Amino acid sequence: MLAKILNLVYRREIGSVWRSVSTHASQRLDIAGIYPPIATPFTQDGNVDYQSLDKNLQKYGSIPFRGLVVQGSNGEYPYLTTEERIDIVRRVRETLPTSKIVMAGSGCESTRETIKMSESMASAGADCVLVVTPCFYHGRMNSSALIHHYTQVADSSPIPIILYNVPANTFLDLPLDAVVQLSQHPNIIGIKDSGGDITRIGLIVYKTRSQDFQVLAGSAGFLMAAYSVGAAGGVCALANVLGKQICELAQLCTSGQWDKAKELQYRLIEPNTAVTRKFGVLP
Amino acid sequence: MLAKILNLVYRREIGSVWRSVSTHASQRLDIAGIYPPIATPFTQDGNVDYQSLDKNLQKYGSIPFRGLVVQGSNGEYPYLTTEERIDIVRRVRETLPTSKIVMAGSGCESTRETIKMSESMASAGADCVLVVTPCFYHGRMNSSALIHHYTQVADSSPIPIILYNVPANTFLDLPLDAVVQLSQHPNIIGIKDSGGDITRIGLIVYKTRSQDFQVLAGSAGFLMAAYSVGAAGGVCALANVLGKQICELAQLCTSGQWDKAKELQYRLIEPNTAVTRKFGVLP
Amino acid sequence: MLAKILNLVYRREIGSVWRSVSTHASQRLDIAGIYPPIATPFTQDGNVDYQSLDKNLQKYGSIPFRGLVVQGSNGEYPYLTTEERIDIVRRVRETLPTSKIVMAGSGCESTRETIKMSESMASAGADCVLVVTPCFYHGRMNSSALIHHYTQVADSSPIPIILYNVPANTFLDLPLDAVVQLSQHPNIIGIKDSGGDITRIGLIVYKTRSQDFQVLAGSAGFLMAAYSVGAAGGVCALANVLGKQICELAQLCTSGQWDKAKELQYRLIEPNTAVTRKFGVLP
Amino acid sequence: MLAKILNLVYRREIGSVWRSVSTHASQRLDIAGIYPPIATPFTQDGNVDYQSLDKNLQKYGSIPFRGLVVQGSNGEYPYLTTEERIDIVRRVRETLPTSKIVMAGSGCESTRETIKMSESMASAGADCVLVVTPCFYHGRMNSSALIHHYTQVADSSPIPIILYNVPANTFLDLPLDAVVQLSQHPNIIGIKDSGGDITRIGLIVYKTRSQDFQVLAGSAGFLMAAYSVGAAGGVCALANVLGKQICELAQLCTSGQWDKAKELQYRLIEPNTAVTRKFGVLP
Repeated sequence: MLAKILNLVYRREIGSVWRSVSTHASQRLDIAGIYPPIATPFTQDGNVDYQSLDKNLQKYGSIPFRGLVVQGSNGEYPYLTTEERIDIVRRVRETLPTSKIVMAGSGCESTRETIKMSESMASAGADCVLVVTPCFYHGRMNSSALIHHYTQVADSSPIPIILYNVPANTFLDLPLDAVVQLSQHPNIIGIKDSGGDITRIGLIVYKTRSQDFQVLAGSAGFLMAAYSVGAAGGVCALANVLGKQICELAQLCTSGQWDKAKELQYRLIEPNTAVTRKFGVLP
Repeated sequence: MLAKILNLVYRREIGSVWRSVSTHASQRLDIAGIYPPIATPFTQDGNVDYQSLDKNLQKYGSIPFRGLVVQGSNGEYPYLTTEERIDIVRRVRETLPTSKIVMAGSGCESTRETIKMSESMASAGADCVLVVTPCFYHGRMNSSALIHHYTQVADSSPIPIILYNVPANTFLDLPLDAVVQLSQHPNIIGIKDSGGDITRIGLIVYKTRSQDFQVLAGSAGFLMAAYSVGAAGGVCALANVLGKQICELAQLCTSGQWDKAKELQYRLIEPNTAVTRKFGVLP
Repeated sequence: MLAKILNLVYRREIGSVWRSVSTHASQRLDIAGIYPPIATPFTQDGNVDYQSLDKNLQKYGSIPFRGLVVQGSNGEYPYLTTEERIDIVRRVRETLPTSKIVMAGSGCESTRETIKMSESMASAGADCVLVVTPCFYHGRMNSSALIHHYTQVADSSPIPIILYNVPANTFLDLPLDAVVQLSQHPNIIGIKDSGGDITRIGLIVYKTRSQDFQVLAGSAGFLMAAYSVGAAGGVCALANVLGKQICELAQLCTSGQWDKAKELQYRLIEPNTAVTRKFGVLP
Repeated sequence: MLAKILNLVYRREIGSVWRSVSTHASQRLDIAGIYPPIATPFTQDGNVDYQSLDKNLQKYGSIPFRGLVVQGSNGEYPYLTTEERIDIVRRVRETLPTSKIVMAGSGCESTRETIKMSESMASAGADCVLVVTPCFYHGRMNSSALIHHYTQVADSSPIPIILYNVPANTFLDLPLDAVVQLSQHPNIIGIKDSGGDITRIGLIVYKTRSQDFQVLAGSAGFLMAAYSVGAAGGVCALANVLGKQICELAQLCTSGQWDKAKELQYRLIEPNTAVTRKFGVLP
């Protein structure tokens, strides 16, 4: 209740800021398509291996990705310093053609730090930020606390934000009513949902359709099903390995070739499980 | 390990039984389509209300269901005596046209009781039985114990059996490898999966496709997504209320009209949630 | 809300029954002490092995147990028919000295069946019944539904009832407020709590102390800690194997020899874990 | 497996460091007693409120605490910058009499950051550090990964470390075998366990008793039970409010006045629940 009142007051005060953001948002960033959440390569002594990073980026050049996710869960951002996180984004932006989107993870536990990190990511050249739900204090992360957090970040961020729901890591599901309310914010343009609950994904698409809110599936395992209920694309760890096939699956879905899509989807589920499981030796 | 050896021994001994079952199974019962899991109406003093049951059955006559599920979770079978469970199935079979399938719940905690119940359901006229995973002793319900249980039931049952996975009630997910192995049994013809994990549903369809194994979605919430990855139909509580619409959704999916299907699916998710939640005042 | 109203109406109508029960309860059955939840021995062909049962009962004769629990989780009651469950209780009662309590499991999913089973157990000679929480429909098993269930059973049962909370099997924790309210019923004399949450156990003792409500720990692993916060005894699977030691631990606790108790408790935790894990090969 | 090999190699290389640490550890820091995990006061504009902090510290002066925990979960460290975290520890150390222990939270997701933070905390005057389990990548946080993490931190930390297990926040239970192995490290002197599983706490005390390993209960709710099975003290949020009573409870337990202890414990459970629940409005 208090949070709601604060929110209202807050919104009124920063009305002018909002209007300018709104104008900006009238040409909403189109994020539809496939993104590999790139891994962060480390050298043997535990530093970021920029040479390997460059090599990986070159490989991605030949694949019709919409862009790259930098510092998603797959990028092991919890093991990086703030400086490393920003440097990697800068490096990716410099190397990647400008037609490709750089989506950078900027979520921290505190609202203040998330705002700072989003600003830093914008300065480093990110096109948008992916903001994971804060989760350490699960008990108090109810709808209104999460709406408050995301609204403050979105109000301040110079680039659009994408909500990031990953219950397998956070043990928290961003409530549907929070997603719907946040979808109305001009600077919140979509969600990456890794939960795999297809009923929920369909419902999010349906209830936010008037907002031009874009839903990205968080795994190749349910990519086709997500497209079938209206998702706009996917952030798929498997795309780091089988990028062409994932892009082909996306293309079959968007062009309505569902029977072919189904066959391709079948062949991708097991490698996807393998990649998802493997992902993760301590650096 | 022990269970596996026992299984092998068991299978050899009952080879002759199996062969006859196999012949039978060469004309596998086609269960594709939509089923409402019918509720059991009770009179005020807590007995089965057969008059209301008949009225409900008449209403269902005009809807193109493939059949009815009797004594699913929705039928509140845990509140019925064995005799009541069998009587209800008999009554449904007598009233329903023979072209419609009667799928009767027969799962108990013990293998022996499940076998007895399956035989009783067959005598009462059921076309096939739906066998929920035993679950009270979660700790020992591993893959091999579950394979052992279902194999024994399938070996003995005079009518085909359908596996029933409903983790929201049982807190147990029938492991994928168990499903795949059980799909090879000639008397196990499908699974009703209520878990809503669409990646898993796709994988089950894919890995059992050589067996002509039929997958039914356990809820209207993910019915279209399930069809998109190859499901054969659905057992949907919502079909008790919006049966025509669910059958229309199924028809749109099987005829490849995915865009129309999507619009209809959207409109069914919220009523589905409401029905799923409401289901359940103590009798 | 409805359940509450029904409850009130119900209570008024059966006021006279209650009063007689109350009188009866003025000499509350003292259940303080240790109970092994006995296993049900099976013959190779899956029937109850009464000879082995008798042998086990003889062994227990030399140990200062307060009584035996028949048809607890350890007794594998979900694998027995109603008739077998009752027969076993009768057999135990015939064999056991009358100074020892026979506590018989009588919990079923439905209130009606639980009432019938409690009556049968009383006829078979049980001194009290242990009533597990119904759990298949977790979603609706809220405080008021559980209070309603237990009140109806307690109103009807000719012998006192003991609540049975075993979240590891039921995935349901009988809410504290329900325990406190039910403790006021003259025919509900205690709880067996297997959850192992010692804060909760202390709180139950504290909040029901005016009712002479008796709390039994559901495992030897936390028996001494439970005694330290006021429990009256324990139902411990380990007592089937190390009965003398558990009774000695209980005696040390009730006589305030806490340092010795601690040393003995230490030595029992690991065998307890082993017994708890082992318990459970499919019959 | 890999982690184990790495561990072995690692240990050999740093053998000399270890020996010096071992010498140091021969006079193990005695941490027995009660600690409030102090809250971090914030000003209205979201900065650390050092004036309020000083006031709180003065209040604590009159209570026989063994020391203070700074930057536990209760200190909301996830909302603080690294600099703020260190500053607060410095301030507490300057204000607190040297006879009182300053136990500072230093856990981060990455081993490298945890080591750096532990060094910073030591420089700021902390007597020991409290290291929460890393948890974002639950899937790979198995025993050997956690042993690897803690061993590296303990090898490097200039001050002793205390393991910190708080499953309600991390959704991860530091495995018992890991605790036992880590207890043998000369620079790991204890554990704060907030899980409330009293069987586990007893087992930890028992299996590490040859190591002079000290177990602190993580909540006032099970403080007496923890003492009864051999714990050395507690870190209790409730001690921020009812510090004298908690210290009195501890004193009753250590002097063997269990009946009085029980009465006091009863009276503290409910306020404890209230404090635990309240703790947590977004700063």
